[in-house]
Amino acid sequence: MLGTILHGPRDVRCDELPEPKILKPTDAIIRLAASCICGSDLWPYRGLNEIEAPMAMGHEYCGVVEEVGSAVRTIKPGQFVVGSFCLSDNTCPHCRFGFQSSCEQREFMTGAQAPLARVALADGTLVALREMPAADLIPHILAVSDVLGTGWYAADAARVQPGSTVAVVGDGAVGLMGVMAAKQLGAARIIAMSRHKQRQELALEFGATDIVSERGDAGVARIKALTRGVGADAVLECVGMKESMMQALHSARPGAMIGFVGVPHGVEFEGEELFFAQKGLLGGPAPVRRFLPHLIDLVLARKIEPGKVFDLTLPLADVAEGYRAMDERRAIKTMLRV
Amino acid sequence: MLGTILHGPRDVRCDELPEPKILKPTDAIIRLAASCICGSDLWPYRGLNEIEAPMAMGHEYCGVVEEVGSAVRTIKPGQFVVGSFCLSDNTCPHCRFGFQSSCEQREFMTGAQAPLARVALADGTLVALREMPAADLIPHILAVSDVLGTGWYAADAARVQPGSTVAVVGDGAVGLMGVMAAKQLGAARIIAMSRHKQRQELALEFGATDIVSERGDAGVARIKALTRGVGADAVLECVGMKESMMQALHSARPGAMIGFVGVPHGVEFEGEELFFAQKGLLGGPAPVRRFLPHLIDLVLARKIEPGKVFDLTLPLADVAEGYRAMDERRAIKTMLRV
Repeated sequence: MLGTILHGPRDVRCDELPEPKILKPTDAIIRLAASCICGSDLWPYRGLNEIEAPMAMGHEYCGVVEEVGSAVRTIKPGQFVVGSFCLSDNTCPHCRFGFQSSCEQREFMTGAQAPLARVALADGTLVALREMPAADLIPHILAVSDVLGTGWYAADAARVQPGSTVAVVGDGAVGLMGVMAAKQLGAARIIAMSRHKQRQELALEFGATDIVSERGDAGVARIKALTRGVGADAVLECVGMKESMMQALHSARPGAMIGFVGVPHGVEFEGEELFFAQKGLLGGPAPVRRFLPHLIDLVLARKIEPGKVFDLTLPLADVAEGYRAMDERRAIKTMLRV
Repeated sequence: MLGTILHGPRDVRCDELPEPKILKPTDAIIRLAASCICGSDLWPYRGLNEIEAPMAMGHEYCGVVEEVGSAVRTIKPGQFVVGSFCLSDNTCPHCRFGFQSSCEQREFMTGAQAPLARVALADGTLVALREMPAADLIPHILAVSDVLGTGWYAADAARVQPGSTVAVVGDGAVGLMGVMAAKQLGAARIIAMSRHKQRQELALEFGATDIVSERGDAGVARIKALTRGVGADAVLECVGMKESMMQALHSARPGAMIGFVGVPHGVEFEGEELFFAQKGLLGGPAPVRRFLPHLIDLVLARKIEPGKVFDLTLPLADVAEGYRAMDERRAIKTMLRV
């Protein structure tokens, strides 16, 4: 089969690979309905994370189970399934606490930019749909696997409540999904920070009530002005850079939580400042598994269309162009036909 | 009247002072039923915080209203009242969000180690009891003003739930009150970190189920061992030093919140570490006003006896000995007869 391999910085290719096999009795093999490229794939693509090349790319997936290992109990061949980028047993204490992304057996998914993929810990990781979804729902189901689940976790960690005023820092795919999550969780006001017209429009479509295009101190001042000097009740930090985190901190009102889901690069917090400003923090790799059943229900009921975040669709063979388009910000998020 | 003045490091005296007067129409003057010395008073006493000497000391108080300013509406002379160390209007957006310690008009109480004190923003700050409390309840009522309210906030910020396993870092008065708060909030297991026999006993009396006397890595290992390797569901950090904060972070399970109420001294957090460990943080000066009505009810119903944290009672004239006893850790917390 063809599969996506990163050979080095900006050298991503579709290579002829052997089909994945069951390696452990808890594995499943799935045939993907579609795949996609994640913003976090750009870190190694840009050479900003060290990698042990060649690296099999792709961690967002949904599709039909082809085969399961001998210990798999609840997942069966023929089912349409969705899983998270974090593979988890869903039974350990961390999973039961709702933090499957810190599962005692946690593994990270790889190799999903391909027609077939191996999913470890299949019983814990995969959620099966009751029937085959309509074809037009595939992009939306695929989006719950990571990008919507991560935006949702940001809103959950920031404790968005019905009536909340929410600020979303970052207009990448995750930030846009954070807007959608805040809307679903009942936020009354959603301020999206974005300076790109196309992303602003998508944010508005997903539920944003205000757009702030300023950054830095000017962006913070704008959010303060929009909230009568108070700041936001909940802030979603969906970037991970020092500047965006400061933006998030200073846009939050005292007592607000900042849900941060962008992997922090060079971010530090001063204890005394956090203390006197009374800003709360909770972040990390999203425990998407916790939210999957609810998010799948929302998609199947056609209440949300998170797949609208895919603004470029390419055949798998053109995966390199998919990476380039995202790297150059010509595309928000690329879906791959596999 | 006599009142407590800090003149410089370790130079605290009871001086003859003029009686306080109404300075603003929103002020009240109260005659204190008792006063006490706070662990945070030791920072300037030890010369670790810069002060503009001479400094009027004391911020914990309860007693009878003597006089109110012309704009005070709800508080009346003759009422027995309790307030927080943070003076707040209780009407601004931050107060209504439950963070009165970040009130737009916030002031910090001073001058309460004296028989009479001025309380600014009386309507917002003071909570009146329906009748005069029994004399034996005074220490318990005094304790809600800061030390219990702060321990309670630590438990609230750490999101202690019924059934939680809670770790409390710090066996000072606030840590001990954190144990009491966790117990009241329904924690199933409360691990108090303490190496002092008398404080261990008080922690057990207040509801601790386990005592960990080890510190640093050994203390963390002990908490992990007590929780089958998982860590605590909620952690109360009641010290504010780098070592105690690391203890708190490493004792927390992924997804746990750390409620931190010790003013951080030299504490920094690395963003990437917080992210991958999935530890949450919320702290700051406690919004005691939010909790006052409930805590007063608990005391009046004789369900809790937070005043047991006072293990030394002195007349106001001996205030210097009260500071010395706490500085030398001969006393947990000193109550003053005023």
